[in-house]
Amino acid sequence: MALINFSPPYQREFMRHTISVLVENKFGVLTRIAGLFSGRGYNIDTLNVGPTDDPATSRMTIVTRGDDATLEQIVKQLEKLTDILKVQDFREDEYIDRELVLVKVAVDSKTRAEVMQITDIFRSKIVDVQPKSLTIEITGNESKVEKFLRLMKTFGVIDLTRTGKVALPRK
Amino acid sequence: MALINFSPPYQREFMRHTISVLVENKFGVLTRIAGLFSGRGYNIDTLNVGPTDDPATSRMTIVTRGDDATLEQIVKQLEKLTDILKVQDFREDEYIDRELVLVKVAVDSKTRAEVMQITDIFRSKIVDVQPKSLTIEITGNESKVEKFLRLMKTFGVIDLTRTGKVALPRK
Repeated sequence: MALINFSPPYQREFMRHTISVLVENKFGVLTRIAGLFSGRGYNIDTLNVGPTDDPATSRMTIVTRGDDATLEQIVKQLEKLTDILKVQDFREDEYIDRELVLVKVAVDSKTRAEVMQITDIFRSKIVDVQPKSLTIEITGNESKVEKFLRLMKTFGVIDLTRTGKVALPRK
Repeated sequence: MALINFSPPYQREFMRHTISVLVENKFGVLTRIAGLFSGRGYNIDTLNVGPTDDPATSRMTIVTRGDDATLEQIVKQLEKLTDILKVQDFREDEYIDRELVLVKVAVDSKTRAEVMQITDIFRSKIVDVQPKSLTIEITGNESKVEKFLRLMKTFGVIDLTRTGKVALPRK
């Protein structure tokens, strides 16, 4: 049985890896992939899976931390699995990565303008306005997103949802 | 053993549901959730999981299709699972949803300007430029993203990665 553990921050002392896996839309794919990581004691920070241009395949992006030698073994085992078409380990290659976060921030008549100003500086978007909250969409790499969220914490984060990272090679 | 199937488009005749699940960062959570869906013959269109404001929890967003009665049972069963703190079924409530897509589009000296123009109209961003390609970040709800991708197909999609949808209630 596959086990999976989303790493809490205090376990995040290892190097981070971003793995992109192109899979066929077949039963059991997610379970088998997750099982490979957890079987080696590898935690998953974020995971996402979505359709590609080809209706028969999906692409999964997994962000994980651990030592390089173990990860190399995982990548080799992934490549051997049926229904897995391609595995890319972005730990060394040049790549572009982005994440999307929706965050609902507490505001009142005094703080609304300030939150709007910060949103503007980060080139993020206000996607909903309520009397006591603003919902903001921010995209970027991890450091940008984390910086923005730290600022929003000072106003009060009511709700938050993150897609996890997706990545594409530059070349 | 949990089995999961990413629905190919020809199976997408059912109503779509967006489920947001707040989970504790414990072993086996992803497997157990995926198992509940697949055990009822429910396919998953997209799935993502990422950290929340609380280091002990993660939020998972699952987009699935199927009949309402079965989904209600799944939600009830999810609520009973240990390590699951909250389940929201966004099929009826008013909510905001967004997805992020990175797409690498083939361009040459003739088509580059046209792709840039369309990118501008969709308020999306060019995040990388290569001699024969542009990589574009687009965010939005499904209909906006799908419309943009259909347009990009006419130029040639080289590579594509999607985060899957995330959602927050408006209120």
